[in-house]
Amino acid sequence: MGPFQEQAWGYTGIFAKENGGGFLTDYSPQASKAIWDLDGVWASSRNVPGVRFIGNSHPGLFGCAPSHDLLAEWNRREQALIDQNPDRVTGDIPAHDGTVPGAPQVPALALPPLANDALLGTLSGSAFEKAAAEACRTIPPREHGGNVDIKDLGVGSRVYMPVFVSGGLFSIGDLHFAQGDGEITFCGAIEMPGFIDLHFDLIKGGMDRYKSTMPFFKPGRVGPNYSEFLTFEGISVENGRNYYLNATVAYRQACLNAINYLMPAMGWTFEQAYLFLGAAPIEGRIGGLVDIPNAAASISIPLSIFDRNILPS
Amino acid sequence: MGPFQEQAWGYTGIFAKENGGGFLTDYSPQASKAIWDLDGVWASSRNVPGVRFIGNSHPGLFGCAPSHDLLAEWNRREQALIDQNPDRVTGDIPAHDGTVPGAPQVPALALPPLANDALLGTLSGSAFEKAAAEACRTIPPREHGGNVDIKDLGVGSRVYMPVFVSGGLFSIGDLHFAQGDGEITFCGAIEMPGFIDLHFDLIKGGMDRYKSTMPFFKPGRVGPNYSEFLTFEGISVENGRNYYLNATVAYRQACLNAINYLMPAMGWTFEQAYLFLGAAPIEGRIGGLVDIPNAAASISIPLSIFDRNILPS
Amino acid sequence: MGPFQEQAWGYTGIFAKENGGGFLTDYSPQASKAIWDLDGVWASSRNVPGVRFIGNSHPGLFGCAPSHDLLAEWNRREQALIDQNPDRVTGDIPAHDGTVPGAPQVPALALPPLANDALLGTLSGSAFEKAAAEACRTIPPREHGGNVDIKDLGVGSRVYMPVFVSGGLFSIGDLHFAQGDGEITFCGAIEMPGFIDLHFDLIKGGMDRYKSTMPFFKPGRVGPNYSEFLTFEGISVENGRNYYLNATVAYRQACLNAINYLMPAMGWTFEQAYLFLGAAPIEGRIGGLVDIPNAAASISIPLSIFDRNILPS
Amino acid sequence: MGPFQEQAWGYTGIFAKENGGGFLTDYSPQASKAIWDLDGVWASSRNVPGVRFIGNSHPGLFGCAPSHDLLAEWNRREQALIDQNPDRVTGDIPAHDGTVPGAPQVPALALPPLANDALLGTLSGSAFEKAAAEACRTIPPREHGGNVDIKDLGVGSRVYMPVFVSGGLFSIGDLHFAQGDGEITFCGAIEMPGFIDLHFDLIKGGMDRYKSTMPFFKPGRVGPNYSEFLTFEGISVENGRNYYLNATVAYRQACLNAINYLMPAMGWTFEQAYLFLGAAPIEGRIGGLVDIPNAAASISIPLSIFDRNILPS
Repeated sequence: MGPFQEQAWGYTGIFAKENGGGFLTDYSPQASKAIWDLDGVWASSRNVPGVRFIGNSHPGLFGCAPSHDLLAEWNRREQALIDQNPDRVTGDIPAHDGTVPGAPQVPALALPPLANDALLGTLSGSAFEKAAAEACRTIPPREHGGNVDIKDLGVGSRVYMPVFVSGGLFSIGDLHFAQGDGEITFCGAIEMPGFIDLHFDLIKGGMDRYKSTMPFFKPGRVGPNYSEFLTFEGISVENGRNYYLNATVAYRQACLNAINYLMPAMGWTFEQAYLFLGAAPIEGRIGGLVDIPNAAASISIPLSIFDRNILPS
Repeated sequence: MGPFQEQAWGYTGIFAKENGGGFLTDYSPQASKAIWDLDGVWASSRNVPGVRFIGNSHPGLFGCAPSHDLLAEWNRREQALIDQNPDRVTGDIPAHDGTVPGAPQVPALALPPLANDALLGTLSGSAFEKAAAEACRTIPPREHGGNVDIKDLGVGSRVYMPVFVSGGLFSIGDLHFAQGDGEITFCGAIEMPGFIDLHFDLIKGGMDRYKSTMPFFKPGRVGPNYSEFLTFEGISVENGRNYYLNATVAYRQACLNAINYLMPAMGWTFEQAYLFLGAAPIEGRIGGLVDIPNAAASISIPLSIFDRNILPS
Repeated sequence: MGPFQEQAWGYTGIFAKENGGGFLTDYSPQASKAIWDLDGVWASSRNVPGVRFIGNSHPGLFGCAPSHDLLAEWNRREQALIDQNPDRVTGDIPAHDGTVPGAPQVPALALPPLANDALLGTLSGSAFEKAAAEACRTIPPREHGGNVDIKDLGVGSRVYMPVFVSGGLFSIGDLHFAQGDGEITFCGAIEMPGFIDLHFDLIKGGMDRYKSTMPFFKPGRVGPNYSEFLTFEGISVENGRNYYLNATVAYRQACLNAINYLMPAMGWTFEQAYLFLGAAPIEGRIGGLVDIPNAAASISIPLSIFDRNILPS
Repeated sequence: MGPFQEQAWGYTGIFAKENGGGFLTDYSPQASKAIWDLDGVWASSRNVPGVRFIGNSHPGLFGCAPSHDLLAEWNRREQALIDQNPDRVTGDIPAHDGTVPGAPQVPALALPPLANDALLGTLSGSAFEKAAAEACRTIPPREHGGNVDIKDLGVGSRVYMPVFVSGGLFSIGDLHFAQGDGEITFCGAIEMPGFIDLHFDLIKGGMDRYKSTMPFFKPGRVGPNYSEFLTFEGISVENGRNYYLNATVAYRQACLNAINYLMPAMGWTFEQAYLFLGAAPIEGRIGGLVDIPNAAASISIPLSIFDRNILPS
């Protein structure tokens, strides 16, 4: 797996809040991006100066197609979530003059099938219309895998995937040159055009034998390898409010703590630090998840990717 | 840091649901425990056969004392959480006959100061009463650190801690011989009696200079080191219901997927697999946190700690 | 760096003793080889069954051209070594009938310039003759680097090389898909046709500033990563004779101890184990080098590359 | 394993050339030493400023007692080595006035049993005299293990040792808090008073079954872990002379290249750099050992143990 040699670059994007936003959209609501220059195994960016790192290339998204029953279940439960607050929608791109009249409450809780403008390969006519009405969006991870954005699925990994329909109907995409845990800016990895080589073996009856309801895998052992980190903690308290054992909030606070530290240490804006955490091979870990009411999480940043010593002195 | 040589053992406990429970209390509501034999750097258990691993010793809990203002803020916001559902309480130990008449809804959302039976060192009289009425429980992690249960805070770590009162009033405890990310059984680490050696330097004005609102740290570089893992994924869907970007649910599903795989592979009960995930040096990672509506998380189990090859064959 | 996709294979060769031999030529004097199938980052061989491993690709040979003075010094000192025992020569390929009449004493102590059949690019006439008479062989490592066969010079490495002539005249070759320390079978790595991408910066006056008499480097941090090894020791005693602090003999004994263990454990012949140690990412380490009269060395073999548990049971 | 808490220090010594010397005795013939302060897992020294590192504690020496036949073989072959140049002896400590009249040629090729002043436990009388006349020195590594000074024999290792006499008669000593590969200053590790805890299992017939002629082992997986190194190469050319595939000379040249770089980079004397390489967890690797006439070796120094960036800039 790797980038096309003749297109040795990638990008990381922050979506605008009215376009769906990202993990820190309330702190950084404007769209932004970084262009990364790929130099062999290395990435660096004119937009995020002071760092250079070896990529942990992996596909963000892959899996076998769901059965019709499983697809129906996805649509059912996601519509039930939407129904909890249907006023939350993902806004369209704002008008060219930049005004957002009647700006919607964003982001949506979930996204239903998108009948308009669906991309459905060679389907046409009533087959197209039927599929467009029920084909789920490919954004979230689901039981088949999908857009899990797990950075450890790197080169050399062996993945055990459930198969739901005859023939499997495997698909893959969303190649990342590098990514931090959480892919927090939404287009948070270093998105790249590239190639990937895969091989398949079939384990008959494997889903039963291995009690498999989701893919599981043996990660590759190709690096990058780091041994020195600076780690920031977060707890599930946000804006003076306690959230009950909420790891999402705890990880957001860990990210914010890291950003607040990195901004003066590296001379970065909030957006630069945010883009960095989405794109670089940082580690996001679950801390204590049982010590009511607060979850803890941590984010660990490899020290050797900076061009200076960022430790307190 | 290490166990006392003359008490070379530890334990991992699952709390009963009516006593507060743990991360998987709805799946395993009974109390249970495992005793671990500590043999130098190694741990093994008669209660969880088939595994032996090197400990990743660390303190579960430490920090400097909060200021009175910070303590008041903790009590305010945690009471606000309790007030969302005050009927949820942590139950007392059930009666000896095992019946639980009028069993409470558990676990509580949060726990207020415990005026009865408070342990407050040498305080007495009105000073005792005042402190007992407002001293927060030491269970959750908070801004000072506290019970973060972050397993990477191992031997050789350097921690940068905020100081809130003159003199710092540092305390530490809850020594773990080993722990998996999440400490999921509540008493989930290998709890041990032991010793720890610490040193302190004071950075004047450090909280301002480093924008520190929580401890951050440089993890030690002492192992155990593993390079081969089996990794299970989870998404924020539970019992047919979608949860919006909820990393807690995603990690719970990853844990359940791991347990379902390990039970037949190792010949374990649910409780044995649950105790194992709480106590062994497993990695809990944040996957995609922006792909609405589903968060992804993963749990990675070192392969070399098993006495057999658990990979699919 | 990597193999050409359309030629995804490599080979490891043992040279026959009369053709120069290898590190264990007295124990395995016949020519032999293994063909390796390269499958992405993985290598396996029909000739060495039971192992599969991720390659540690690196160039065996590179450097800048020597000055005329340095070249003269190489020829002087290597001729002095040859003169210690000029009867030792590298034999020609034996006659087609397999007989080796008057077989020479091999291998030679060193090899002088090879005037016949020299490959000298576009040189011709007297320029060719002059160069052919003095151009050193490219087999050994020398002050400019050359054929160091150091497996840690992997992808992502940064090398600081001395420059001896204007323009540098850098050359590179001998791409290895994988290699064990020592490259003990002579063609011991997995030799492959492939590509490599390099970049250069010039440090003016760097040889003086950094006291550089040979290349030095910062190894890449791309794997493979292993954490579980089986390690064999060797000391500088061979055939009942003590060698004074001789790390070469100690490493040969470590290799032989490893081979003796692996043959029954894997069902291999001596040649198969020998080819394996030359080609796989095994670690060769210096042990004690000061404890007269014996040097110690060790060879560490990653356990996870075998398809079975080879540990004593 | 660790140092005694009440004696948290160790030392590294360079032996004077007339007292046996070390690996670089021709470059640094005077005695010298460094005192290391042990602070938990960390070591630092007032004598070698600018470095601080986590120890890789291990025993330098252990093994089961040889049989009488094996002991006789050791004495035979080592005497044969001594006989090659009996004028080489290890000198006595020089006279108090510092003069060394008729200084001997040192170090000796090997050392015979030392009848005078032998330390033989509770033996006395003729038993003492017999043992003193034939008991080999414990300095070198031999078939039973002995003073191998292999730094990877760290905490958590499992060693498979040959047994030569009934009861095994295991002994152990020479505890090192840390050591670099080669232990090049002779007392090159951080020698410490301390404790070690071992357990034994007996494999009946194991020497036959596993073709064991020397100890072999599975190294522990406790760190320190490093991922960023600066690596220096060496070849088997010394003082203008080529040595035939001599890894000892190649490693000495790698050490000298490292010292020449470190002296200006760290502001150290030759002795300080020499003590550092003996004591710190540096890696000594075998490079190409088959490319006649030159062996290659390398020495890799972890970058994070320095208090400054020592890379070329």
